[in-house]
Amino acid sequence: MTTAEKLASLRAWMEKNSVNAAIIPNADPHNNEYQAPRWLSRQWLSGLKGSNGTVVVTAEKAGLWTDSRYYEAAEEALAGSEIKLFRASDPGVDSIIDWLKSELKAGDVVSFSGNDISEADASSWVSSLKVADISANTELDPVDEIWTDRPAEPCGKLDLVAEELTGQSTEEKLKDLRALMQKKGVQVYLLGRTDESNWLLNFRGTDMENHPTPYCYTLVSADEAIFFIDEGKLSDEAKRKFTAAGFTIRGYGEVASVLEELDKDTRLLMVPRYTNHNLYKAGSHCFLIKERALATDLKGVKNEVEMENTRKVMIEDGAAMVRFYFWMYSELQAGRKVTELSASKKLLECRQAISGFRHVSFDSIMGYKAHGALNHYSVDENSDVEVTLDGIFLIDSGGNFENGTSDTTRVIPMGTPTQEQKIDYTLVLKCLIELITAEFPEDATCAQLDGICRRPMWQHHRLYRHGTGHGVGYGLEVHEGPQNFSGLTTERMYEGMLSTIEPGIYRSGEYGIRIENMVHTVKSADTPFGKFFKFENLTFCPINVDLVDTAYMDDCHIEWLNDYNAQVVEKLSPLLNEDEVSWLKHECRPVGK
Amino acid sequence: MTTAEKLASLRAWMEKNSVNAAIIPNADPHNNEYQAPRWLSRQWLSGLKGSNGTVVVTAEKAGLWTDSRYYEAAEEALAGSEIKLFRASDPGVDSIIDWLKSELKAGDVVSFSGNDISEADASSWVSSLKVADISANTELDPVDEIWTDRPAEPCGKLDLVAEELTGQSTEEKLKDLRALMQKKGVQVYLLGRTDESNWLLNFRGTDMENHPTPYCYTLVSADEAIFFIDEGKLSDEAKRKFTAAGFTIRGYGEVASVLEELDKDTRLLMVPRYTNHNLYKAGSHCFLIKERALATDLKGVKNEVEMENTRKVMIEDGAAMVRFYFWMYSELQAGRKVTELSASKKLLECRQAISGFRHVSFDSIMGYKAHGALNHYSVDENSDVEVTLDGIFLIDSGGNFENGTSDTTRVIPMGTPTQEQKIDYTLVLKCLIELITAEFPEDATCAQLDGICRRPMWQHHRLYRHGTGHGVGYGLEVHEGPQNFSGLTTERMYEGMLSTIEPGIYRSGEYGIRIENMVHTVKSADTPFGKFFKFENLTFCPINVDLVDTAYMDDCHIEWLNDYNAQVVEKLSPLLNEDEVSWLKHECRPVGK
Repeated sequence: MTTAEKLASLRAWMEKNSVNAAIIPNADPHNNEYQAPRWLSRQWLSGLKGSNGTVVVTAEKAGLWTDSRYYEAAEEALAGSEIKLFRASDPGVDSIIDWLKSELKAGDVVSFSGNDISEADASSWVSSLKVADISANTELDPVDEIWTDRPAEPCGKLDLVAEELTGQSTEEKLKDLRALMQKKGVQVYLLGRTDESNWLLNFRGTDMENHPTPYCYTLVSADEAIFFIDEGKLSDEAKRKFTAAGFTIRGYGEVASVLEELDKDTRLLMVPRYTNHNLYKAGSHCFLIKERALATDLKGVKNEVEMENTRKVMIEDGAAMVRFYFWMYSELQAGRKVTELSASKKLLECRQAISGFRHVSFDSIMGYKAHGALNHYSVDENSDVEVTLDGIFLIDSGGNFENGTSDTTRVIPMGTPTQEQKIDYTLVLKCLIELITAEFPEDATCAQLDGICRRPMWQHHRLYRHGTGHGVGYGLEVHEGPQNFSGLTTERMYEGMLSTIEPGIYRSGEYGIRIENMVHTVKSADTPFGKFFKFENLTFCPINVDLVDTAYMDDCHIEWLNDYNAQVVEKLSPLLNEDEVSWLKHECRPVGK
Repeated sequence: MTTAEKLASLRAWMEKNSVNAAIIPNADPHNNEYQAPRWLSRQWLSGLKGSNGTVVVTAEKAGLWTDSRYYEAAEEALAGSEIKLFRASDPGVDSIIDWLKSELKAGDVVSFSGNDISEADASSWVSSLKVADISANTELDPVDEIWTDRPAEPCGKLDLVAEELTGQSTEEKLKDLRALMQKKGVQVYLLGRTDESNWLLNFRGTDMENHPTPYCYTLVSADEAIFFIDEGKLSDEAKRKFTAAGFTIRGYGEVASVLEELDKDTRLLMVPRYTNHNLYKAGSHCFLIKERALATDLKGVKNEVEMENTRKVMIEDGAAMVRFYFWMYSELQAGRKVTELSASKKLLECRQAISGFRHVSFDSIMGYKAHGALNHYSVDENSDVEVTLDGIFLIDSGGNFENGTSDTTRVIPMGTPTQEQKIDYTLVLKCLIELITAEFPEDATCAQLDGICRRPMWQHHRLYRHGTGHGVGYGLEVHEGPQNFSGLTTERMYEGMLSTIEPGIYRSGEYGIRIENMVHTVKSADTPFGKFFKFENLTFCPINVDLVDTAYMDDCHIEWLNDYNAQVVEKLSPLLNEDEVSWLKHECRPVGK
């Protein structure tokens, strides 16, 4: 089916069901960032891959809203279709709801699947549409009937993770969680986001390629804990272990009826952005507690075992990247052909050699030249291009290991860089250094830290439209909360949090620059003004100096860069052969004014 | 009555009314920052003056919650009383509700006056208490019966403001407001904050000393506009003018019944933080629209007439401050006695000489030595101290004029400063410069800008626990929204906004340092990355250089300082006499490394 045919059958479905507009997201029952193929409705309809994007269709028009990471990919995907791109990160662009209000009239009906939209989004949409006398039908799934070859629900086996890797047993985590629930007055708590269950029960799933989060729920009260998952996903050992830790196991589909049966006085916590609209309804007769996602909060603060393992894996990960770079330069110098795809395969091989490797932590972004400006570019046979000794190459990649998760972005010049490329790169690097060296009080907010990172490039009228960084899971999702660095995030940092810092500058059709390190929030000092935090750097991978123009740096930035690259040589050399070390030392040579 | 006696009669009232705890704020029906004496309940009960602070009383205990600006003043006010101070700006301090939940038991009742608490606070309190099975009684006013000499409601006359001063007529403003209401789907809009009525109807009130906001409401729909105010406050001319502009005039007390009579399908906007709990209930049968405070948004963006007038008045205001400084140094050098109070009187005289002066824009903060560390110190006969040629003197003051509002803070060394004082001062100055010279994209948030300001002192483990700045009214309140600079503020900036930047460092018992300028948000550039803004500086008043240690500044900061002080000399000299100019030139001499 072409996109035009899909739109035609969607519109026929809409007419049959008296629906004037349909909202088609990529969204699953947990508001997960990544979904199993069954829930990739927007991708199926529009062709746009990636974690962000929603299609909206009326009888006359169709639009796709996505954030700046996917602007160029969306342009490519939508070329030749009637679907219009709405650049949702840009100032002044209509939101989906504003657009619907301008396209529809009073009495019209908008349809979206209440099973796959978070309560947070659904309730906000419903009340905003109501202002214009537009109602929402959340009972039907607009694509289910017309998506004839829709994939089934996945059924991947769970892998248990040993306590020496997690640093905390399920029993201890359950105890901590119940203590926090009691403090917050919560009697029953639905862990709606799937990685919360991963963390609590110490397992990895295989429902999705490259994602350890299987479809499941956990419901916890003071004296009961229920793990909702299809039994086919559990080994006998897993069943024994979860049961021994105090969990009852029930089917994934049973969660709604268990919520429905709760007494109406039950003080229930369901987090609206992690619970779908229909499931939320199932528990909404209870006394609903407005609270944070308690399991996400506990999970966000890493314990010492998790940190020790992460430190170790990050050095091995850095060495793998150096091995890859050395291979690539050797191939090119020997006149052999390298493409984005062959580079991607080689990088995977280098990571696979690391003990504990499970899978990539996300699809590697191998962005040569203009592809580097596509924030979440994913190379395939169609998009693959040859890499030569010219232009800029952005590589953003990471691994999911038994003992940690990595996420690193580096940019290298393949030939002689232009002055604009050097200025852009140096400003990005300066932004990274400003935040990675920041000292901040314990109640500093993520938005304040985000501003600190962006200032150096703002002064030169450059910017990036994505977040400055995100929380990182321990062997779990590469993007996790509660913290992330953006101007809208008023979360604070806690000691033990694991995050990325990744400023960038993108020139559409030309190149992309991003430098990304992982950092750990640690105590810096107790002072008369209170406690101060700083970041411990975790990423050891050369920061290229050929792209640096030190005229754009202060002495403190140059000092940081030279010190950083010296540490990279020191940490990685023991893991590399002589030729690789020699390349590394040259790549990490000190720079001056 | 002593505080102990007041607490005793409050507890007797509580027992009689079966109430287990009472919350006593300084709060009026509009959630105004400043209140007429009738609503200064917390001040009456605890003795603490100032704009922030709430007392909570149970049968056994009493506590006062206030923000960092008032810590020291609260300590003084509470000395010898049983009321315990809760430092609400500090991390980890129990909120009022958390404390009540720990002190009370299930089934208990908390009383606070629903007339004087915003719907935003009241609804959050009610639902948080409900979690612990504690109910709220919002019908009674805990102090009304026991406060036997409670002041009456004020009845100050309104003064009309001419259109050549406001730049926009009431008719035009009403048209803009109605257009915005229509765009947002609002049929009826209650302007709950009093300065929104000031702005719309172009007047100043005299209900409160030093505040132009009288007790009134305005209700606007597409074909009706009602101004609720006690008729005794209106001259015949005012009545004629408001009527001609399309307003019906009704009594202040009638607003609730007009809301009650609205049809239930009415799309009504009441802003929960600007509408009290009981009034909100009066309109809550309608279809409530969740929207921003539309009049506050329109008011926040100044027009060209307002800006031209503000620029002019700020230069006159700066000259008045220089005249004051010159007088003070002359007095001291001649061996005459100067105290905080006499200095305050002299500064007022200097401002009163400016054409269009109405009153101070807030109680001047004349903080000599340790008083400078009291963020909102207000000098009176009891606290007054002599100012000598020693220590640090912080002066934060401003005027409310027909043609603008000023708010400036400067710090001067009266003797030879210590190295710690110089470092603190230089870091504060560096923070100011970092933000005042910032370039930022149009969707930058206030929290990002706040982080940019704070970084220089965070690097040296210093901080301030107040906001970095606030919006400033045009001849209206010195603190106004929607913008303010704090880590929790995700508001963005608009071209034409008027704000302060005022970082500080406070050493309890020793001294306070704060430097505050007013700034105007203007366009900096249209770039391939979008529109960038910057700040136009509006304050011209010497920044003392004796306290500067240039070792703590980069070249760009030194350059900014020298350029700034040169501008101060250039702008103010024409308004000063020869001796004053000579003092000014010395005060503004350039510094180097």
